[in-house]
Amino acid sequence: MSQFTHLDSRGAAHMVDVGEKVVTHRTATAMSRVTMNPQTLAMIVEGRHHKGDVFAVARVAGIQAAKKCSDLIPLCHPLMLTKISVELTANTAESCVEIHATCKLDGKTGVEMEALTAASIAALTIYDMCKAVDKGMVISHTRLLTKTGGRSGDWQADE
Amino acid sequence: MSQFTHLDSRGAAHMVDVGEKVVTHRTATAMSRVTMNPQTLAMIVEGRHHKGDVFAVARVAGIQAAKKCSDLIPLCHPLMLTKISVELTANTAESCVEIHATCKLDGKTGVEMEALTAASIAALTIYDMCKAVDKGMVISHTRLLTKTGGRSGDWQADE
Amino acid sequence: MSQFTHLDSRGAAHMVDVGEKVVTHRTATAMSRVTMNPQTLAMIVEGRHHKGDVFAVARVAGIQAAKKCSDLIPLCHPLMLTKISVELTANTAESCVEIHATCKLDGKTGVEMEALTAASIAALTIYDMCKAVDKGMVISHTRLLTKTGGRSGDWQADE
Amino acid sequence: MSQFTHLDSRGAAHMVDVGEKVVTHRTATAMSRVTMNPQTLAMIVEGRHHKGDVFAVARVAGIQAAKKCSDLIPLCHPLMLTKISVELTANTAESCVEIHATCKLDGKTGVEMEALTAASIAALTIYDMCKAVDKGMVISHTRLLTKTGGRSGDWQADE
Amino acid sequence: MSQFTHLDSRGAAHMVDVGEKVVTHRTATAMSRVTMNPQTLAMIVEGRHHKGDVFAVARVAGIQAAKKCSDLIPLCHPLMLTKISVELTANTAESCVEIHATCKLDGKTGVEMEALTAASIAALTIYDMCKAVDKGMVISHTRLLTKTGGRSGDWQADE
Amino acid sequence: MSQFTHLDSRGAAHMVDVGEKVVTHRTATAMSRVTMNPQTLAMIVEGRHHKGDVFAVARVAGIQAAKKCSDLIPLCHPLMLTKISVELTANTAESCVEIHATCKLDGKTGVEMEALTAASIAALTIYDMCKAVDKGMVISHTRLLTKTGGRSGDWQADE
Repeated sequence: MSQFTHLDSRGAAHMVDVGEKVVTHRTATAMSRVTMNPQTLAMIVEGRHHKGDVFAVARVAGIQAAKKCSDLIPLCHPLMLTKISVELTANTAESCVEIHATCKLDGKTGVEMEALTAASIAALTIYDMCKAVDKGMVISHTRLLTKTGGRSGDWQADE
Repeated sequence: MSQFTHLDSRGAAHMVDVGEKVVTHRTATAMSRVTMNPQTLAMIVEGRHHKGDVFAVARVAGIQAAKKCSDLIPLCHPLMLTKISVELTANTAESCVEIHATCKLDGKTGVEMEALTAASIAALTIYDMCKAVDKGMVISHTRLLTKTGGRSGDWQADE
Repeated sequence: MSQFTHLDSRGAAHMVDVGEKVVTHRTATAMSRVTMNPQTLAMIVEGRHHKGDVFAVARVAGIQAAKKCSDLIPLCHPLMLTKISVELTANTAESCVEIHATCKLDGKTGVEMEALTAASIAALTIYDMCKAVDKGMVISHTRLLTKTGGRSGDWQADE
Repeated sequence: MSQFTHLDSRGAAHMVDVGEKVVTHRTATAMSRVTMNPQTLAMIVEGRHHKGDVFAVARVAGIQAAKKCSDLIPLCHPLMLTKISVELTANTAESCVEIHATCKLDGKTGVEMEALTAASIAALTIYDMCKAVDKGMVISHTRLLTKTGGRSGDWQADE
Repeated sequence: MSQFTHLDSRGAAHMVDVGEKVVTHRTATAMSRVTMNPQTLAMIVEGRHHKGDVFAVARVAGIQAAKKCSDLIPLCHPLMLTKISVELTANTAESCVEIHATCKLDGKTGVEMEALTAASIAALTIYDMCKAVDKGMVISHTRLLTKTGGRSGDWQADE
Repeated sequence: MSQFTHLDSRGAAHMVDVGEKVVTHRTATAMSRVTMNPQTLAMIVEGRHHKGDVFAVARVAGIQAAKKCSDLIPLCHPLMLTKISVELTANTAESCVEIHATCKLDGKTGVEMEALTAASIAALTIYDMCKAVDKGMVISHTRLLTKTGGRSGDWQADE
């Protein structure tokens, strides 16, 4: 079985050496979901069309979080994302907000953690803005959907 | 129905005025869960006893993230946590790592977002450290378990 | 004439000792203005009503910057704002966006710099979002409008 | 008319994809001005020659702010400036401090926002250090003077 | 023997609960020393009198680092320093720069780490500014000199 | 004698222009040492084998600090480290913890300050975790051991 790359032979954490890796174009898309009461979702949706900032604030929070990823996740490399986007969709059938975050980079290391961090912080921001009316919201389905580029090649989550 | 407190009457986001609130002792506990392949969990568990830093790194990441909460979640107030703890447990029955984060404060605003942020970033750190062997891990069950203090009083999640 | 409080008797910068000051309720409101081509302003205004995030992004940027003030302005004290709001208005008569930022605190030191920082960063964010169509925009009128609280008492800018 | 590049077709904010852009040498110079009472300016000027840190502190604040630009302006790309300089000049004729900030980069995106941010934060730092004696100071003329490099080519502000 | 307060009974790191502690006035003074070639020190000293920013930049770096302490040292509590000062002195007899940093707070936790961090980062900044001429500089004597306040009371380093 | 590169001809601090430098592979290793009471060291050593997080927390703190170097040291360039490692060793003969930090980069500027910052913050973290039992610890021997790459070539500290 392969090893945990973030631990050295004695089990001590370190930041992996990527100096020898080649620069390739890399992308990653991650998702997350905030499930809430139908009334809470209705308040967001109404606000989105008529007056509200809920999705706009969450989108900015997700974008800014992607840029802070190496400060948040201790063994992540600092890197210079060339593109970040965060999409939020109200899913009334399942009474949730769905978040998709995509990051891109030409670099030596993948951007999976950046996309996952963007999706997670956007989800937490939705929670924050709605918690006065619904403390029981649950964040789930936070996972990588696809990645491209790098030595390990492309990857796609199972359905 | 109550309003979203983070939007003013025109729907513009703002940071709620807590100046008039009283200082009370506040606590919050949140959880999150990282579900993974049994082999991945076995590698962590083995590492924890014999040589590894996986849980230690995730614990530190969660603690530091709680302190960054107001920088990550745009409408959160800056505050001075008096206590942060992050516990990680290997749950082999459900093949996941469970994370519980608790924050405490004597202040004018609750610490739910700090606990949720600590749990989320600890979960993402687990993902980061194990992703070389298991990209299909899923983070879920990120939610508030209990809160105490403040005008809205104590709250506990349903079973 | 009074002294520069941020320099000691030898002219060396230091962070003023506010330990002996009393906690009072403090507020400050600052403004800034981004003057642009009428067509640029028309694009923002149209976007604001129908689809766009320009003002929402600038508002979030201003709010987050107020919280970072002590990290940006070297001799500012860290403090825990109880309220931040940033208002943006399109002034078509003078072809500019006007920004008003208000901060509040119960503390030992004033919040003028926090309000000025929020207004300045919101203005820079407007510039950033519109610079692809109008690089000649000018930020001006960045100044304190009012402050209340503290030993020096209330203050109001001249008309 | 050209589009706002920071909004997608639905008006949602995103960080522009610069992955396809070519790396070119880029520079930008921005200015800002802090107008104050003649006595306040005299105090700074005297301090500068004999004992004071006012300009040195503002210079450091501006340099550090340029490095934080992508953390302050939500849709700015993280980038690795190769050069930052901030110059402060006392202009007694107009009773103001003038600030010129220059940034350089070999990269895929311009450094206008970095130069503008450096100038703005240096101006705010001047305000902070002098506000005990002069709260009515006004920051103005914050604007881009020149930029070079990139697809849109060189640009220079009108006189 | 007393326990390490930052480890729980199982050895896991956590941030100590200071919620029950009383607010007292606290101060701490720490020092550090950068030993260098006599010629390097001469260059700094000359610069300090006639034209240079070396000490001013190091002073600002130390002050700002004290404010970042809880972001740098994982188990430190966030706190709101009421005073920070950093003094640099050229000691030609021992061919070193001596740094003294003092922090003050009215709070529930001590400010030793903040003073030590300020002194350490000021020392590193001196190293950075002089390394082009002297890579062999050594930072030493980084230690707490005095602390006052708190349950454990006053403390003073041995001579 | 060579000049201080971080000061311009008037003595004003600036960030050196590295735009013309070539990209080379660069490494730096720095050390630091925390001298403590033998009993304190014994407590750490025992904890390391059986239950404790002391070295793990210090290692993470050092790694994260290396990434923050350009935010801490005002005239350092932002850069994208490809590797960071921090090793801690208990030296019972001299009753100290020894820290070695290594950073790597393919870039235009050296990584000495990043390695020194990692070692320094790891040392301060050791101090923080042990200060409840031993306030008299001293941090010393903070210095560069080796560097490779760049125009000035390789360098090694004297014994």
